Amino acid sequence: MKARVYVTLKPSVFDPQGRTIAEALHSLGYAGVGDVRQGKFFELEVNAGSDDQARALASEVADKVLANPVIESYRVEIV
Amino acid sequence: MKARVYVTLKPSVFDPQGRTIAEALHSLGYAGVGDVRQGKFFELEVNAGSDDQARALASEVADKVLANPVIESYRVEIV
Repeated sequence: MKARVYVTLKPSVFDPQGRTIAEALHSLGYAGVGDVRQGKFFELEVNAGSDDQARALASEVADKVLANPVIESYRVEIV
Repeated sequence: MKARVYVTLKPSVFDPQGRTIAEALHSLGYAGVGDVRQGKFFELEVNAGSDDQARALASEVADKVLANPVIESYRVEIV
């Protein structure tokens, strides 16, 4: 089965990449777009017996490798 | 309202970053993880009258700025 891990900077952390994208969009005339935040996502092919096991494995991998828990938060979705 | 744009490399495009992550996970002992693909995601704050308008704006922005349609595909979600 597949696990998707979405990693974003925590809301209190400044996101210069998102800010740059927002400014670029404004200069291109997209006034309807306000704040932008950028994150990463990972699609993992997971061998696990159940959704719960897959979720546990993906969460561990996210916590230890994919995200930096000091400044980033993550969300796991099993599909 | 918020629009989330998920950008991934098309399945036929080789993803060296995902491959490196998969190899790193295997060397760390996570044998249950198979293939890994990495993508980006963007959370846009959108000023629009309706969900459909927000989706149209986010799709246009994704198509023209956030994704490279030659090698990447994207998915838009309104939340």
